[in-house]
Amino acid sequence: MNPMLIDPDRLLPAEPATRTMARRLYAEVSHLPLVSPHGHTQAGWFARNEPFPDPATLLVQPDHYIFRMLYSQGVSMEDMGIGQPMIEDPRKVWRIFASHYFLFRGTPTRIWLDFAFQELFGLEKRLSEKTADMYFDTISEKLRQPEYLPRALYERFNLEVLATTDSPLDALAEHKAIRESGWKARGNTRILPTFRPDPVVDPEFAGFAERIAQLGEQSGEDTATWRGYLKALAKARARFRALGCTATDHGHPSAQTADLPEAEAAKLFEKVAAGRATAAEQELFRAQMLTEMARMSVEDGLVMQIHPGSVRNHNRKIFERYGRDMGADIPRAINYVDALRPLLDRFGNETGLTIILFMLDESTLSRELAPLAGHYPCLRLGPPWWFHDSPEGMMRFRELVTETAGFYNTVGFNDDTRAFLSIPARHDVARRVDCAFLARLVAEHRLEEDEAVEVARDLAYGLAKKAYRL
Amino acid sequence: MNPMLIDPDRLLPAEPATRTMARRLYAEVSHLPLVSPHGHTQAGWFARNEPFPDPATLLVQPDHYIFRMLYSQGVSMEDMGIGQPMIEDPRKVWRIFASHYFLFRGTPTRIWLDFAFQELFGLEKRLSEKTADMYFDTISEKLRQPEYLPRALYERFNLEVLATTDSPLDALAEHKAIRESGWKARGNTRILPTFRPDPVVDPEFAGFAERIAQLGEQSGEDTATWRGYLKALAKARARFRALGCTATDHGHPSAQTADLPEAEAAKLFEKVAAGRATAAEQELFRAQMLTEMARMSVEDGLVMQIHPGSVRNHNRKIFERYGRDMGADIPRAINYVDALRPLLDRFGNETGLTIILFMLDESTLSRELAPLAGHYPCLRLGPPWWFHDSPEGMMRFRELVTETAGFYNTVGFNDDTRAFLSIPARHDVARRVDCAFLARLVAEHRLEEDEAVEVARDLAYGLAKKAYRL
Amino acid sequence: MNPMLIDPDRLLPAEPATRTMARRLYAEVSHLPLVSPHGHTQAGWFARNEPFPDPATLLVQPDHYIFRMLYSQGVSMEDMGIGQPMIEDPRKVWRIFASHYFLFRGTPTRIWLDFAFQELFGLEKRLSEKTADMYFDTISEKLRQPEYLPRALYERFNLEVLATTDSPLDALAEHKAIRESGWKARGNTRILPTFRPDPVVDPEFAGFAERIAQLGEQSGEDTATWRGYLKALAKARARFRALGCTATDHGHPSAQTADLPEAEAAKLFEKVAAGRATAAEQELFRAQMLTEMARMSVEDGLVMQIHPGSVRNHNRKIFERYGRDMGADIPRAINYVDALRPLLDRFGNETGLTIILFMLDESTLSRELAPLAGHYPCLRLGPPWWFHDSPEGMMRFRELVTETAGFYNTVGFNDDTRAFLSIPARHDVARRVDCAFLARLVAEHRLEEDEAVEVARDLAYGLAKKAYRL
Repeated sequence: MNPMLIDPDRLLPAEPATRTMARRLYAEVSHLPLVSPHGHTQAGWFARNEPFPDPATLLVQPDHYIFRMLYSQGVSMEDMGIGQPMIEDPRKVWRIFASHYFLFRGTPTRIWLDFAFQELFGLEKRLSEKTADMYFDTISEKLRQPEYLPRALYERFNLEVLATTDSPLDALAEHKAIRESGWKARGNTRILPTFRPDPVVDPEFAGFAERIAQLGEQSGEDTATWRGYLKALAKARARFRALGCTATDHGHPSAQTADLPEAEAAKLFEKVAAGRATAAEQELFRAQMLTEMARMSVEDGLVMQIHPGSVRNHNRKIFERYGRDMGADIPRAINYVDALRPLLDRFGNETGLTIILFMLDESTLSRELAPLAGHYPCLRLGPPWWFHDSPEGMMRFRELVTETAGFYNTVGFNDDTRAFLSIPARHDVARRVDCAFLARLVAEHRLEEDEAVEVARDLAYGLAKKAYRL
Repeated sequence: MNPMLIDPDRLLPAEPATRTMARRLYAEVSHLPLVSPHGHTQAGWFARNEPFPDPATLLVQPDHYIFRMLYSQGVSMEDMGIGQPMIEDPRKVWRIFASHYFLFRGTPTRIWLDFAFQELFGLEKRLSEKTADMYFDTISEKLRQPEYLPRALYERFNLEVLATTDSPLDALAEHKAIRESGWKARGNTRILPTFRPDPVVDPEFAGFAERIAQLGEQSGEDTATWRGYLKALAKARARFRALGCTATDHGHPSAQTADLPEAEAAKLFEKVAAGRATAAEQELFRAQMLTEMARMSVEDGLVMQIHPGSVRNHNRKIFERYGRDMGADIPRAINYVDALRPLLDRFGNETGLTIILFMLDESTLSRELAPLAGHYPCLRLGPPWWFHDSPEGMMRFRELVTETAGFYNTVGFNDDTRAFLSIPARHDVARRVDCAFLARLVAEHRLEEDEAVEVARDLAYGLAKKAYRL
Repeated sequence: MNPMLIDPDRLLPAEPATRTMARRLYAEVSHLPLVSPHGHTQAGWFARNEPFPDPATLLVQPDHYIFRMLYSQGVSMEDMGIGQPMIEDPRKVWRIFASHYFLFRGTPTRIWLDFAFQELFGLEKRLSEKTADMYFDTISEKLRQPEYLPRALYERFNLEVLATTDSPLDALAEHKAIRESGWKARGNTRILPTFRPDPVVDPEFAGFAERIAQLGEQSGEDTATWRGYLKALAKARARFRALGCTATDHGHPSAQTADLPEAEAAKLFEKVAAGRATAAEQELFRAQMLTEMARMSVEDGLVMQIHPGSVRNHNRKIFERYGRDMGADIPRAINYVDALRPLLDRFGNETGLTIILFMLDESTLSRELAPLAGHYPCLRLGPPWWFHDSPEGMMRFRELVTETAGFYNTVGFNDDTRAFLSIPARHDVARRVDCAFLARLVAEHRLEEDEAVEVARDLAYGLAKKAYRL
């Protein structure tokens, strides 16, 4: 058995000459700061800077990558502490997790966790039923030390910027508190909000009407009217921008866009706000709102992210009992080429607009997304998302996209995580896979080494800063 | 030219360190018994234990992988003996096959056949027009020897269990005869039936109404009513279980499921049984029946296999002249995520239920199937099927599935063949490709060798036994 | 930095034993003549044999691969000389192109251009802002030399046959002029027309009715009637055949076919010709015409090519301002399995008919296209097209297609280009990638070397001649 959990050559190609090249490229990017323009960490951690709780509460309970796998093999949600506001017996949950750790063989979760176990907590023996308690005790003890407080970890992780994801109704008090605290890492710490309007834009969200009203109160606009509603959204965007926000995010079921005449849009809004809209009208409203958001982005410069194609809360019983985001979101086939056309007809040729498209349907990569991004000046491709944020997924992304869209219509890496401790591991995986891909291009004489170095640095650092206007 | 047809390192990666690792893994699994939980061999072969006929009748006429390729290049069905109850001139058919053997370059058929030619018949020179007669004579002669009788081959192949596929109307006389014969290989020979209800569940089958009536007679239930029909099916399942059956199989055009209120289902059944149902109602009936079958599986423990997505008998003229299964079934794009929802809403969280999903549309692997199997406790992924039962297909399957669903939501290998002689070759290919995949993970430091050995053994042997409850 | 732009081992696998094998295979095919049965060069170049103009007009302005990438990164169409009948300042356009050359890293465009720069113009330093003028001057000077005239290049490129793509309304005067000029390269120069009836078959084309009338005048048939229209098309085909044409080409939005009773087809034609057809009727008419074209092919022996699945002119503003073929055609998901059925029901079993299917949706390769081509005697698979005419695209094509359809249901390579100078580079890429694929099969003992050599020669040369009946 290996004395260490992770190897310095992990994820680099086995062929010796290619590996040597990949190592050389990786050496050029491994120490670059982390730019994290899209994720789901909590600003409150950095505002309060309190110790993270025990290993089960920190690593198992909030991570749907972990509990979906255990659930798929018959472990109950209760046994993983899901649905409990505070885990009653964290050590018991941890032991259950540890005894199922073999399930993660070959998965990115395994790579992320082993990285954190070794690099952050100094663990060297594999997690298993036998080592469960040793792990639990070691991690618990470290989490109480000052070097493991959120701000200290932020600095240790070499983060340059970290974006959260926030509702337009959020007062962003914690973001303000961070700013006011005067905390600086690397001279210029930045925890930035991201404007995610889904809860006030997607009529399928429970409590939609109440939220629209709340948006009105907050902004002083009459959100009972279409114009007032749009103004309220514009004001909310401005409020986010004032706190450093540079991007919006949109998690729609499809990529459908629309460009209705104003009167029709206003009528549709009335129906939707009154809760009288059919499913098709709700879809049309979301579609219209993507185009409205693009229009506002042309005006205020916020970069637009679209994350379409997920059937949310697919498991009815789990949803009814435990609510949203319980590991049961399943992708569906998606069409970008027709769906985006109304928006692109209107704003596709705006060179000042940036729309970053994400995907969960890999069949669209070479068929639709690379051709679209390789033509429209406003379009860029986001990194492989969710299930595809993995070594094989990232490699396929480069293989399927590069020949048509090049490297410069992509935007670097997003860690897109709730799991703060996994951030360095995730960036490390992306950097290694990109270096592996580039090393193959060099080994096959499709790119010279000096160019590969430049591209590697752009993929690891430069493109994210540029695309997200950081 | 190579003095042998197959090389000991075949299908292992060329990179030397990875190949060495793959060899080590393969050495751990190459001699494990074969578990064949899904296939289309004939119980009668083992009941009667008579010699197989000549090479053309044994290897060409029944193998649609072979004659579809020759047909695609202009060889007529007649020239391959198709449509003849007994081939008039088997040597002539064999010569035609041999002179077109080059067409199979790069295909799994070539690998399977060369394996059998060398390992089973001791042939060492490549099949071609020149060697056609030598092959015909050698194979013909061997087939008359006792070591080439079906039972002897079963033992030589190191088979531990072999499942056939059978209609609920089948009396299973041959399965009974095998049991009564007292034949035992390895202490415990098992030829098991599989319950495949398509002919009495899919209204598109010719003679559907007659079969429903026959099901009633056989079971003593009134299959003119919905309740009686369901009871008759449950009785047929019990009859299969008594002969060792552990699984059902469902070859529907789509993966659509439904969960109708009982009264509606009963009405639909009446319409369907009376032959008055539209195509959409026929589809709805099949959909409902998948959920009914799942319900019975929750009760009786039979593992459920779903093989959807094939447009059967695509070539109208071939179908009209030669009937079903003539190499003209073509896959179609398929949706699992919406289609399975009614069934999963009802039984998705049953930990006692196992549903094995198969696919012919590789775009669903990373998009839908791995996410579904990586969450629902009842779901497992079957091995790559049909056109994808091939080195590249198997490798893509692991690459597309493992990162999201892991190894333990898959179920090992199915040979799924009518061609008894190809069974060892097919398992050998699967074991080699899995070892090649695992060797790459080890070479890239994504898995330790001790874990890879454990996984390799599970993929080759353990998972199939567990998933199929053998 | 490399002293040369292209390496003798480019695109061959890095693993040393596999590379050695690939080199041996490539040595067997690198000097075979080029067969170019499908492309978009201009017969007029060879008829007139005048010097090509400056580098920008020759290489940038007509190449939508190039200007789509620059446009996607914010370069305006005007800055690339698009929409100008003659580029006002070619050096300025060239400099803009050169300073954006890094965008093509990892793309086939880069490979094609570097090949031409080095092999044709003797350039050895990478194109960039710094070397822009040196490139411009070097290329400009060479283009004035007699060795760079179109006919000289044709000979230098080792072309054996080159097909253009032409409207049925084209008088083919330039093809005639070439024939009459007596020019012969390699004994038997052939510039052949291809019959592309889209403008008189697809009612969505602007000016459809006028073109139908023109077809009538040209042929002396009454194209106001369905019968007359079909007769006129048959006559046009005969006219093409007389000038060496062996193939037709059909660039429909979908692969839909139909087989209407004659009276219905006649009625549909009337409606379509009168401009009264709905979008669905226009689609049905195109579908019917594919079957009519197949019928004529059965009669006159022309090979049929179908290029479906592209949403043409996706960017509305670019289309309105600059017209068709401006780099904004985007593929869409496509169904072959149902769409082709009416045509295949009628002619699918004709061994005298050849239909070559192309694709822009890679998910269809293993799911639909390989199974179809591996069964129907009339079907063959065209090489990866457009965005997929690239090293990764070609490799995926072989990996996804070969195991089901073999090599012999594919038809070799098409360069399919407007960019005459890129032809040798494109064939070279295809030959190298095929040799890389075959070398892996040999290295993994899936094919013997003597067979790989035979296949390599067939893929590079033999299959194209055979499939296109050249």
